[in-house]
Amino acid sequence: MMTDSAGSQNPRRLIILTEGQTDPIEAKTAVAVMRYGKDEVVALLDSTQVGKTAQQLLGVGGDIPIVARLDDAPTADTLLIGIAPAGGRLPSAWRATLLDAIGRGWNIVSGLHDFLSDDPELAAAAEHHGARLHDVRKNRERDVARRQGIRSNCLRIQTVGQDCSVGKMVVAVEVARALARRGHDAKFVATGQTGIMIEGDGCPVDCVVADFLNGAVEKLVLANQQHDILLIEGQGSITHPRYSPVTLGLLHGAMPQGMILCYEAGRKTISGMDSVPLVPLSRLRNLYEKTAGIMHPSRVIGIALNGRLLSAGQMDEERAKIRDELGLPVCDVYRDGPDVLVDAVLALRASLIG
Amino acid sequence: MMTDSAGSQNPRRLIILTEGQTDPIEAKTAVAVMRYGKDEVVALLDSTQVGKTAQQLLGVGGDIPIVARLDDAPTADTLLIGIAPAGGRLPSAWRATLLDAIGRGWNIVSGLHDFLSDDPELAAAAEHHGARLHDVRKNRERDVARRQGIRSNCLRIQTVGQDCSVGKMVVAVEVARALARRGHDAKFVATGQTGIMIEGDGCPVDCVVADFLNGAVEKLVLANQQHDILLIEGQGSITHPRYSPVTLGLLHGAMPQGMILCYEAGRKTISGMDSVPLVPLSRLRNLYEKTAGIMHPSRVIGIALNGRLLSAGQMDEERAKIRDELGLPVCDVYRDGPDVLVDAVLALRASLIG
Repeated sequence: MMTDSAGSQNPRRLIILTEGQTDPIEAKTAVAVMRYGKDEVVALLDSTQVGKTAQQLLGVGGDIPIVARLDDAPTADTLLIGIAPAGGRLPSAWRATLLDAIGRGWNIVSGLHDFLSDDPELAAAAEHHGARLHDVRKNRERDVARRQGIRSNCLRIQTVGQDCSVGKMVVAVEVARALARRGHDAKFVATGQTGIMIEGDGCPVDCVVADFLNGAVEKLVLANQQHDILLIEGQGSITHPRYSPVTLGLLHGAMPQGMILCYEAGRKTISGMDSVPLVPLSRLRNLYEKTAGIMHPSRVIGIALNGRLLSAGQMDEERAKIRDELGLPVCDVYRDGPDVLVDAVLALRASLIG
Repeated sequence: MMTDSAGSQNPRRLIILTEGQTDPIEAKTAVAVMRYGKDEVVALLDSTQVGKTAQQLLGVGGDIPIVARLDDAPTADTLLIGIAPAGGRLPSAWRATLLDAIGRGWNIVSGLHDFLSDDPELAAAAEHHGARLHDVRKNRERDVARRQGIRSNCLRIQTVGQDCSVGKMVVAVEVARALARRGHDAKFVATGQTGIMIEGDGCPVDCVVADFLNGAVEKLVLANQQHDILLIEGQGSITHPRYSPVTLGLLHGAMPQGMILCYEAGRKTISGMDSVPLVPLSRLRNLYEKTAGIMHPSRVIGIALNGRLLSAGQMDEERAKIRDELGLPVCDVYRDGPDVLVDAVLALRASLIG
């Protein structure tokens, strides 16, 4: 079963919880929902930043206000959790906020690993007030991969990365949308909670039981392969000490013919693990082609540079350096637009159709 | 949390359910429990084979009888499910048997992905009759890998394979026991339901949520690294279309310094997927060293040949061929004993302590 987000129905009016973490890294879910989502965002909830705007703090969202209380966003109908709690447990202050929202009959959208709908107090309150608790990661995946019925004419492109939080979801969305603008039948395939929130469907692969990971990804491909081109959101990194099996399951379940390698210029170590150095891009490219190639021939067709930390001059230098080093097209999809990656996707398609 | 099997306490008196599948492949859990477990096996339950013995059908277990009804094993106190149901769902005939056993106050041990303790009817019956439902695969793993506190002087050896069901668990058990007989402090580290049933502890890695797989394996190593040598049970295969992420998570969580590559002579395709050819051993060795090596240097130190289908003459031929081809020690742990693999483990240990 794919997760079907409430976002696939009528647009919601969201208040997004970003308490104490309204910055572009910690609140990346909020950023993506404002940038790409179908729902109206009424406000961000962060009592430490009241009076500022989303644009000021996150570089997106225009005049969307930061508020301290639900009372300050009376037109909302849904509270979306836009950050991860420290320590992975629901803080007690959040619990009070969620109960307040539920008491107003608002729905809750959560991407946490710990499911709100399994919490007796929250579940009882939701039942009482007719609110819906939507746990985006909740799934009952129980199918193994079968390798049957996969349409070879559907081009599968997967974003892969040097680390977490380098832009794999953003690149997949931007390339899919640019292909659509050029008249191609392309679809962004969401594999993480934020992607599912903005796209309205997908599979939360990092929360699938390990035996069924490849099978869940294969089903996701089968469900979308009526499109000509799939842009499949990658997860983690094949070199990530924590999440490498999620990355591999995506590659072996989706069997992409092409990959776009994403990285952030200037980052030296795995995020959150300062003692683990990142693997250089040239070696990483080889590792991805080898590990993906266990199931299906696949090659890296372009590099997505996240130049968040670079000046314009540094960007030019970095882009040229990587292009020379790897002999592949390079761009920052935010600052340069995704055109060179779109061209690379279409070139791969032409070469495979022959 | 590691799963702690009921087997870690007083020995139980088991009746093992193998209905309709009392053969060495389908009933491999029953075979391992009889061969390696600490519990007394009173009978096997298979109404299609009544009157035969375990030895006749499975090559192990001596005079343990095959019976049709629980009444025929009155001294049992525990029913252990020794096979997987076709289709993954609990057959209605099994349900009646489980309820019968629970009604006698017997405990149930199950390695199924669908948890008996989550089944309302079975859970209510167990509560009423004071029986325990032990779901060996059930876990709440929620920790990511940290890469801290790993003892470099603990030698970690992992069995890896060309496919499922080639002997990875058996080889790990046999090598650990042979090392112990030679006076070494070696421990078999169970990572699957059968291994946990016989060892009394371990982690059911294939049932862990993907984001926490490497972390669960790392915890398992940390919990056992007071021993000098760990023999870690491998799972699946890095080339298995269904289970490759489980294999990778074990390698990246455990970071073995050495691997023993297991295969069954004569097998040509992935079990259950006739259209998927097996990867040749020489390429496979390279793939394992490359993928394990992403996290920690590791090399294949020996080959475990499963010669189940071979005559004595064919065995000699196969052993010599593989030894020449790969330049590594080769043995069938059942037919040859594990000595050459034990020597390879000790040689690796000597070279690392150097």
